[in-house]
Amino acid sequence: MIKKYYLLSPGPTPVPEAVLAAAAEPIIHHRTPEFSRIFMETTEGIKYVFGTKEDAFILTSSGTGGMEAAIVNTLSPGDKVIAINGGKFGERWGNICKAYGLSCKEIVLEWGRDFTKDELEAEIKADSGVKAVFATLSETSTGAVYDVRGFGEVVSKTDAILVVDGISGVGATACPMDEWNIDVLVSGSQKSFMIPPGLAYIAFSPKAWKRVETSRLPKFYFDAVKAKKNLEKRTTPWTPAISLVIQQKKSLDIIKEMGLEKLYAHHRILAESTRAGIGALNLEILAQKPGNILTAVKTPPALDGVKLVKVMQDKYRAYIAGAQDPNKGKFFRIAHLGYMGAFDVITALSALELALADMGYHFEMGGSIKAAENIIKENWT
Amino acid sequence: MIKKYYLLSPGPTPVPEAVLAAAAEPIIHHRTPEFSRIFMETTEGIKYVFGTKEDAFILTSSGTGGMEAAIVNTLSPGDKVIAINGGKFGERWGNICKAYGLSCKEIVLEWGRDFTKDELEAEIKADSGVKAVFATLSETSTGAVYDVRGFGEVVSKTDAILVVDGISGVGATACPMDEWNIDVLVSGSQKSFMIPPGLAYIAFSPKAWKRVETSRLPKFYFDAVKAKKNLEKRTTPWTPAISLVIQQKKSLDIIKEMGLEKLYAHHRILAESTRAGIGALNLEILAQKPGNILTAVKTPPALDGVKLVKVMQDKYRAYIAGAQDPNKGKFFRIAHLGYMGAFDVITALSALELALADMGYHFEMGGSIKAAENIIKENWT
Repeated sequence: MIKKYYLLSPGPTPVPEAVLAAAAEPIIHHRTPEFSRIFMETTEGIKYVFGTKEDAFILTSSGTGGMEAAIVNTLSPGDKVIAINGGKFGERWGNICKAYGLSCKEIVLEWGRDFTKDELEAEIKADSGVKAVFATLSETSTGAVYDVRGFGEVVSKTDAILVVDGISGVGATACPMDEWNIDVLVSGSQKSFMIPPGLAYIAFSPKAWKRVETSRLPKFYFDAVKAKKNLEKRTTPWTPAISLVIQQKKSLDIIKEMGLEKLYAHHRILAESTRAGIGALNLEILAQKPGNILTAVKTPPALDGVKLVKVMQDKYRAYIAGAQDPNKGKFFRIAHLGYMGAFDVITALSALELALADMGYHFEMGGSIKAAENIIKENWT
Repeated sequence: MIKKYYLLSPGPTPVPEAVLAAAAEPIIHHRTPEFSRIFMETTEGIKYVFGTKEDAFILTSSGTGGMEAAIVNTLSPGDKVIAINGGKFGERWGNICKAYGLSCKEIVLEWGRDFTKDELEAEIKADSGVKAVFATLSETSTGAVYDVRGFGEVVSKTDAILVVDGISGVGATACPMDEWNIDVLVSGSQKSFMIPPGLAYIAFSPKAWKRVETSRLPKFYFDAVKAKKNLEKRTTPWTPAISLVIQQKKSLDIIKEMGLEKLYAHHRILAESTRAGIGALNLEILAQKPGNILTAVKTPPALDGVKLVKVMQDKYRAYIAGAQDPNKGKFFRIAHLGYMGAFDVITALSALELALADMGYHFEMGGSIKAAENIIKENWT
C-alpha cells in the first residue's frame, strides 16, 4: 500500500493548498509599496483574530521568540512575577523569566489540572508588588484551556499586567484581547494561523505600553519600540520572512471570510467528536477542563504509551503527538486545530483503533468512529 | 508593455525556481526522522559554506537575530569590545553591543573607506582587555569588502574573539572560518544562500565556545548551549521554520554541486562586468576596496540620486537599492550575489542607462552593456 503521511500534531499543522502554493511565487523586496500593503493587511488580520484595536507586530521567530519579546519589553531586572505552570509551555514562561533575572514565583500544577481565577487572586494577594502574571490560553502539552477571561478580571484590578501565551489557542478558541483585559498576547504562525512555522505575533495593551516605556531588560532584535516606529512606516525593523508573511495574508483571508465565530464552532465540533470517540473507547481525557485545540488522552494502564504513539506514527503514518517529558508514555495528543477537518478527526481515531487493536486492547472496532460521526452528522450544516 | 519586476537588490535575492517550488510541499513535522535528516544535511551544507569543522546552528530569525546571538552568547555586562563601523551594518554591531551594556569602542569609517589589519592592530594595542572585535565581511550598505583574513591574523594573537557579520558576503566571496581564525561567523538565508529571508546561521570556534561557558549576558531564544544540546539530538530547541529549512537544503545541494570555488568565480565575473559597465558610463564606485557581492555607485553630481533610484525601481521595475540614511541619494547599489546571472547584470546596467537618459545624463547608450559583455564573453566557459 501507499502509506500516506497525515499530519495530526498540535503544531506544525496542515497548511491549505492555496497557501502552500503562495510560497512558490518569486520573492519580492520587503521595502516596496507592494509588500507594505500585504504586510499591513496581515497585521490587520492578526488584530482581527487577536480581538484588539492595538498594533499587532509580526516577528520573524518561533513562538518562543514572541514569549521572550513579551518579557524583555515590559519588565526590569529583579521584577516580581507569577507564572502559571500547567505543563511544558507554562514552564517556559518561568524559564525565560529566570534567564532574564526576574523574581519568578511559579505555580506548578499537576499536568491537566485546572487553575481558577479565585486561586490566582489569592496568589496575587499573598505577594505584594507583582508586576506581571504569565498564563497560557491552551496548554499544548496537556490540551487544557484556562480561564483567561477570569484571569483578566482579576489582574486588571491590580498593577500587574496579564501576559498570555496564545500560541496554540488563538484562532481556535475565543480570546478577545481587549474585551478580556489581556495586556500582552502572543501567538505563532504554525497553529491556527494555518501557515508553516517561522513567525510570531504579539500585541500590547495601553497598560503594557506604559511598562514598555520604563522596561530596563536588555533587548535589540525583539525591541517593541523599534517595531512600533517601523510599523508607523508600514514596515519592520529587520528583514521579515517575506514568503511566510505572504502566506499569512492568504490564510487570514480564509479566516476572515469564514469569520471567527464559525471558526471557533468548527473547532468545538472537531473537539466534541474527538472526545466522543475517545469516550466510546473507554479512554480517559487528561485535562480537567479540555479545550477545543487538542485532546490529550491517558494511555490505558496495561499498554506501553510510547509504543502506542510509535505504532500510530510509524506504522499507520498518522502523526499524532506523544506526551512530553517528564510524562512520556502516560498520554498521547490528538490535534484538531488549524486547517483540520472532520475527516482528520476520523483518521486520527481510526489510526488509534488500529494501533490499539495491534496492541491487544479490547474495544469494539469502529465504535469511536460511530460516536464521532454522530457529532459530525448533527453539526454538518 | 508588460512591465516585469526584476529583483536586483542585495537581499532578498532571487530564489531558484526549484527551491521556490519546495515551499509548496505539504508541511512535515519537525520532530521526525524525515525532517531530522534534512535538518542535519542542511547544517552540514552550512558548515561547508562557512569552511568550518565546528557545529553550525540554524536560527529562525533575520540576520540581525544571528548578530544578537553572537553577542549574548560570548560576552558579559561591561565587557570591552571594538566594533568596526563602515556603514549601516557595522553600525548595527555597535548598537546591539550598547543595548546589552557592553563598553563598545566604535571605529567609525567614512562610508566606503577601507580599514586595514594594521589599523586594527593599533586599535587593539591602544586599549588593553578587549574581549571581542566585531567586523563585517561585506558591508551591504557600501559594497566594501574588508580584510577579514588579516583581521583574523591580528585578533588570533590576542585574547579577543573575532566576530564577523558574513550576512551578505558568505557564499559569494571566500570566508573560510577555520582557516582565517574567525571565532564567530554569522550569515543569513536571503543573500547568497539563495532562499527567502527567515533563517540566520551561526558557528563558534573552540575559542568562542570557551567564552560561551562564562558569558553572563541574559539569553533564552538565542541560547547557543540549548542549540548545541538539541543539535546533538539532531533537532532544534524551538520549532524551526520548517519550509525554509527544506528550501535551504535544496539550495545547498545546488551550491555543493557547483562547488565554492566556481561560485566565487561566478560572483567575481558578475562584479567585474558590473564595474566595467559603470566605468564605461564614467561613473565612480563608492568603495575603496569593492567586493564581488554588490556594487555601490556614486550618483553623478548633477543628478538627483533619490529620483534616479525611483526611476529604475518604479518606471523600469528594476529593483536595485538606493543608499541608506544618512547617505540617501548619494549613491545607489546594484547587487550581484545569490542566484543572479550575467543577464541580471545586463538588466541592471540597461535599466540604469534608460534612467540616466531620462534624466539628461550624457553618455553613449549601450556603452556599459558592451563593456560588461566583453567581460562575460571572456569568461563564458
